Amino acid sequence: MQRKIRMGMVGGGRGAFIGAVHRMAAQLDGRIELVCGAFSSTPEKSVASGRDLLLPADRCYASYPEMFRAERERPAGDRMDFVCIVTPNKTHYPVAKMALEYGFNVMCDKPLTFDLKEALALRKLVHKTGLLFGLTHNYTGYPMVKEARALVRSGRLGAIRKIVVEYPQGWLAGALEKSGQKQAGWRTDPAQAGSSCCMGDIGTHAENLAEYITGLEIEELCADLTTFIKGRKLEDDGNVLLHYKGGARGILYASQISIDDENGLRIRIYGDRGGLEWRQEEPNTLILKWPDQHRQLVRTNAKAGLLSAASKAASRLPAGHPEGFIEAFANLYRNYALALEAQLDGKKPTPEALDFPSVDDGVRGMAFIASLLKSSQSRQKWMKAVAWK
Amino acid sequence: MQRKIRMGMVGGGRGAFIGAVHRMAAQLDGRIELVCGAFSSTPEKSVASGRDLLLPADRCYASYPEMFRAERERPAGDRMDFVCIVTPNKTHYPVAKMALEYGFNVMCDKPLTFDLKEALALRKLVHKTGLLFGLTHNYTGYPMVKEARALVRSGRLGAIRKIVVEYPQGWLAGALEKSGQKQAGWRTDPAQAGSSCCMGDIGTHAENLAEYITGLEIEELCADLTTFIKGRKLEDDGNVLLHYKGGARGILYASQISIDDENGLRIRIYGDRGGLEWRQEEPNTLILKWPDQHRQLVRTNAKAGLLSAASKAASRLPAGHPEGFIEAFANLYRNYALALEAQLDGKKPTPEALDFPSVDDGVRGMAFIASLLKSSQSRQKWMKAVAWK
Amino acid sequence: MQRKIRMGMVGGGRGAFIGAVHRMAAQLDGRIELVCGAFSSTPEKSVASGRDLLLPADRCYASYPEMFRAERERPAGDRMDFVCIVTPNKTHYPVAKMALEYGFNVMCDKPLTFDLKEALALRKLVHKTGLLFGLTHNYTGYPMVKEARALVRSGRLGAIRKIVVEYPQGWLAGALEKSGQKQAGWRTDPAQAGSSCCMGDIGTHAENLAEYITGLEIEELCADLTTFIKGRKLEDDGNVLLHYKGGARGILYASQISIDDENGLRIRIYGDRGGLEWRQEEPNTLILKWPDQHRQLVRTNAKAGLLSAASKAASRLPAGHPEGFIEAFANLYRNYALALEAQLDGKKPTPEALDFPSVDDGVRGMAFIASLLKSSQSRQKWMKAVAWK
Amino acid sequence: MQRKIRMGMVGGGRGAFIGAVHRMAAQLDGRIELVCGAFSSTPEKSVASGRDLLLPADRCYASYPEMFRAERERPAGDRMDFVCIVTPNKTHYPVAKMALEYGFNVMCDKPLTFDLKEALALRKLVHKTGLLFGLTHNYTGYPMVKEARALVRSGRLGAIRKIVVEYPQGWLAGALEKSGQKQAGWRTDPAQAGSSCCMGDIGTHAENLAEYITGLEIEELCADLTTFIKGRKLEDDGNVLLHYKGGARGILYASQISIDDENGLRIRIYGDRGGLEWRQEEPNTLILKWPDQHRQLVRTNAKAGLLSAASKAASRLPAGHPEGFIEAFANLYRNYALALEAQLDGKKPTPEALDFPSVDDGVRGMAFIASLLKSSQSRQKWMKAVAWK
Repeated sequence: MQRKIRMGMVGGGRGAFIGAVHRMAAQLDGRIELVCGAFSSTPEKSVASGRDLLLPADRCYASYPEMFRAERERPAGDRMDFVCIVTPNKTHYPVAKMALEYGFNVMCDKPLTFDLKEALALRKLVHKTGLLFGLTHNYTGYPMVKEARALVRSGRLGAIRKIVVEYPQGWLAGALEKSGQKQAGWRTDPAQAGSSCCMGDIGTHAENLAEYITGLEIEELCADLTTFIKGRKLEDDGNVLLHYKGGARGILYASQISIDDENGLRIRIYGDRGGLEWRQEEPNTLILKWPDQHRQLVRTNAKAGLLSAASKAASRLPAGHPEGFIEAFANLYRNYALALEAQLDGKKPTPEALDFPSVDDGVRGMAFIASLLKSSQSRQKWMKAVAWK
Repeated sequence: MQRKIRMGMVGGGRGAFIGAVHRMAAQLDGRIELVCGAFSSTPEKSVASGRDLLLPADRCYASYPEMFRAERERPAGDRMDFVCIVTPNKTHYPVAKMALEYGFNVMCDKPLTFDLKEALALRKLVHKTGLLFGLTHNYTGYPMVKEARALVRSGRLGAIRKIVVEYPQGWLAGALEKSGQKQAGWRTDPAQAGSSCCMGDIGTHAENLAEYITGLEIEELCADLTTFIKGRKLEDDGNVLLHYKGGARGILYASQISIDDENGLRIRIYGDRGGLEWRQEEPNTLILKWPDQHRQLVRTNAKAGLLSAASKAASRLPAGHPEGFIEAFANLYRNYALALEAQLDGKKPTPEALDFPSVDDGVRGMAFIASLLKSSQSRQKWMKAVAWK
Repeated sequence: MQRKIRMGMVGGGRGAFIGAVHRMAAQLDGRIELVCGAFSSTPEKSVASGRDLLLPADRCYASYPEMFRAERERPAGDRMDFVCIVTPNKTHYPVAKMALEYGFNVMCDKPLTFDLKEALALRKLVHKTGLLFGLTHNYTGYPMVKEARALVRSGRLGAIRKIVVEYPQGWLAGALEKSGQKQAGWRTDPAQAGSSCCMGDIGTHAENLAEYITGLEIEELCADLTTFIKGRKLEDDGNVLLHYKGGARGILYASQISIDDENGLRIRIYGDRGGLEWRQEEPNTLILKWPDQHRQLVRTNAKAGLLSAASKAASRLPAGHPEGFIEAFANLYRNYALALEAQLDGKKPTPEALDFPSVDDGVRGMAFIASLLKSSQSRQKWMKAVAWK
Repeated sequence: MQRKIRMGMVGGGRGAFIGAVHRMAAQLDGRIELVCGAFSSTPEKSVASGRDLLLPADRCYASYPEMFRAERERPAGDRMDFVCIVTPNKTHYPVAKMALEYGFNVMCDKPLTFDLKEALALRKLVHKTGLLFGLTHNYTGYPMVKEARALVRSGRLGAIRKIVVEYPQGWLAGALEKSGQKQAGWRTDPAQAGSSCCMGDIGTHAENLAEYITGLEIEELCADLTTFIKGRKLEDDGNVLLHYKGGARGILYASQISIDDENGLRIRIYGDRGGLEWRQEEPNTLILKWPDQHRQLVRTNAKAGLLSAASKAASRLPAGHPEGFIEAFANLYRNYALALEAQLDGKKPTPEALDFPSVDDGVRGMAFIASLLKSSQSRQKWMKAVAWK
């Protein structure tokens, strides 16, 4: 392609955190440019947000239906190539559905949809349209996560026995939603967030990370979800025991009441020949554990001869220059852009380009939430995982 | 007292790790001296071990019954004051029973006994004799654990909501018991270790640590114990969900197949006003977490004005001079010695002196193991904790 | 401004690391766009690099003189607003000089020039033209560096007594320049890099960081520069004792032969009331040290009420989402863009917008190198710092 | 030997920190017992301290001359074998001299003496008497320091190029000596401490550590000593550049005004094939750095097959059971006791037993202090190290 990929955005107006992240991530590598948007459900705010972003007035749309209609009318060499959806959970499905129906490729924030039923319907539509669909389970974009994946998949850790993945946060340890804080408001509101707060928001990241690295699937689980804040309608903490297919055991926990924990996603994986450990808050180090060698610290982009192609491709800087959250997020967009370029050029994307979370990952996440809720409400110890394939 | 307390030892002969630890810990502060022992079930080895330790020949006994008989015959100002029991689990009960019957105070390695039934019988005997009984759940001896306890008990963290306690090790990740390694041999042998390997050995330490700091009791639990090594008869890994009385939730896990994890006991506790975190492998730092203050690092014996009396009393060196495992272990002995001095002098021990694990802690540990096994074999999600009081 | 600031670039073509960093950093916040460039001294490579970057053909220039001439001819509402210079050291001066003479504002990679004489001449020209000049001493862009500066400047640490700043790297521990590696080649070549390798490249970052945080100026110094690799013409390691005006003492060291150290810039500052510590490789934590409070960990964008306005403004994400090297670099560009917008709108930039390294910082850096070389060659212990004001 | 080695003590009475450390360290392994002492220069306090320690009344001496005389009179099978000297610096020499003259072996706290002249005289006397003399430069007792030494001496790091050793403390950041704190009082008093405070107390530890690991000797140095507290008569901070024989460069710094730094001894050593790093406050980890392998963490007593005999012999516990300051200190005593046993049995001590600091290390330390003071007062950049051999 001799031009940048053109992105439109739904959601992410003034004051929204995740919209800005998507814009920075998408444009970091100079292959994608934001060309239009419907940034808010309030038409005036939507347009004003677009102007803040220095977009031309005629591409600051008052609503997403208006945007899809107007962009479809623009000449092929000018209209947006894909839309990025960063609205609250409940609108993911209707926005994505309309985008696909208007022929636009989609990059969607997670969770995929409001519930599993919508997720299955959306997947059907994606498959039917043949359009490119990405989901921003962004933590899999870190170079050292890709290194971990390459290591496990290569068999160097042997057969996986145990996975411990945790995601503690503390920001909902008080009744923040009562203070008018917007994000706390919708995340704890079943009408907007769906049937889960903590597990839907961050527990699914933990599940996705474990699956991305190991390829293992949950067979059955035992969940203990808790709401600690009085009057809150969704859970703010959850502890889960896992049985993976093939015999591995797991613990997954997520929490939003773990005071002063910021964004503590951490994973430990043990095989019968070695183990590894990674922490999101210090993402450029991967710890390797061996029975008869000294513990090793693998570092982003250090000692190229020892690293997988995947982790090297996911890094932009020499070792010692910290690459963070935005860069990891950008790696999803980079691959999505590469795949989309190929598709727009009528070619088949490479396997490397397809290394970004798909609609299938989104369906699996929604099924995971459904499994957790079923288990948490049951007196039965082990609950078979809800099917997602 | 104008003399040292006199200790005898059962077990801990040549090649035993834990016996040497007890000797170093007991004698570190110069208030206790080893005067005699029956160090092995093999008479020759027992005597030779005593000679290695430079004990007089007439107090290197061939067996513990011989020792109890002979020591009782010695004059009051000369005979041993208490016996330290460091044999494999299955003999704790008979040795302790005989010691008590012969009128000797006892310090016993954990777990208390082979099973809960023995534990209950032993407790009855302790109460009946009025002798002083200590149990070496040694991790509660660290100064920063005592600081954590003081903090939680003072209410500064508010009502406790969540406890995450873990204890991963890797030393049994292979079939070490088949290589003839002695400790692996008896720990994985139900006839010697009892009904549990991993949870009995280290899971009980984790449970004890959580209880020591918070005072919370387990109401019900859900356990998933696994044996990863083919042919091994006892579990080498266990994951447990916990419901504490009063509403706190917990995760406890212990593992002996977590390759290259050494002795990774770690605890995180979250209340509604603050949280804390402590790791055994870096024991002189306690992390405090607050909603609206910077994270704090409390350090052993640093800034006396900010520390509890309990943590200061448990430390021997200025801040920055690492105090380790032996020093923590020695704190149990120091308190035990203070309490025993008082008792021998006909006085009531102070509450501070009684800060060492008691026979009750041992019974609770055995009940915990029983609860885990019941739960692990059940299809019911939540199992009421086996009573121990 | 209702449009993006337009940037041209000199240098940074195919294979150059730092050019890509500047492009990502400049464009991260969506206020600057790259519109043209002369990316290489080889005309064909220059143009091809521009095409790689998806620039229009007529703005991929064969050389920087051509670019300056052509851009000046473009209408005011279309021509580039400033030029970013990312060539090897020796051409900084001629490129910047011509840019200024053609009326373009400048953002220049460090060191400012080839030698102090050029630096002084360039400063004169900047002052004469009144154009906006920035220098990318990028490490001062980190939020926690700004927090450190705010803390020191507020007096909370008291009078500064001691500064220890170090910058070990290992990449030149072997004779990498003999392998044809391009960057090693020019950095160790006096004709291209100037009179210093290690101190010019990274020692000046260390000096700049210390000055940025504390505001202290070096009064006299004692330097020990060493070349460890046989045949290398410039130093690859340097240790320096510092006397600051006002009585503070310092140690500064930089090294390129410290095997496996990546980019280990670290600073410790001690006042008479407190101290602080910061490491570039874990940039989102600032350690605070007090005589009578627990050690504190300040974290990027955590607990807004406790942070300075400067550090909050320099951060884009909630706490726990690591912000790295590119984000810190982008903070220089963001402020530069804000200042340039004001200037282009005929307004005076705010003090906050002027928080980026200036031509004065560049002159001071060149004077620092000159001081080091004088000291290193002298038998006199203390060498007065070369004047730069 | 079929008995314990008998130790007497001079100094270390009530309230003294280091005396208690020596007693714990000496007796940790059950090969040494404290049998007598003259614990204070105040006779009543001396005797009372002995009683506190549960010593028999007739061996609680009022003064050290009385102790030496009385112990010499006791039968050979009963008198003390060696004396441990833990008095303030200024009395090391007279006490050690008298002990040697009375035929007693000596273990002496560091620094060896009040000044270099005394040190040389003492060495002569040690050689003349043939008695065993040890010095407690205790940091060399850590297992990972011994591992570092074995690694460097084996050549695995190649030729050593650079050493950075630092020892920051903060306890004298205020005028503590004015508050009546005893240790601050004598350490800052030239009449008691000698010509140096900070460098004599802790700078010599840093020098000793570097020499112990690398075997390198200082050829010339450049020192900058500072007194930050008004009215204090000795320096409380010092920064030093080092040239080692053979071409290695070094930085050594020690400080007692680095607020909230506890006991921050840290060393980094770089050769032309690899590097290492060790911190006293986390002593059970040794970091290894390689140009083309992942960074490695060596851990005390982990993976026996990879460790040197020296580090294994210096450790008492399985990996993961922290060994701290007292255990490291005890390693000096253990080796001293082994060597003394051999000597008392008329045998030649093994090289392994002689791995404890000797009178030569003490002389070298005193010469180092003399070199620092000469350099600090000079305007000459490089000062040849004062001879000590």
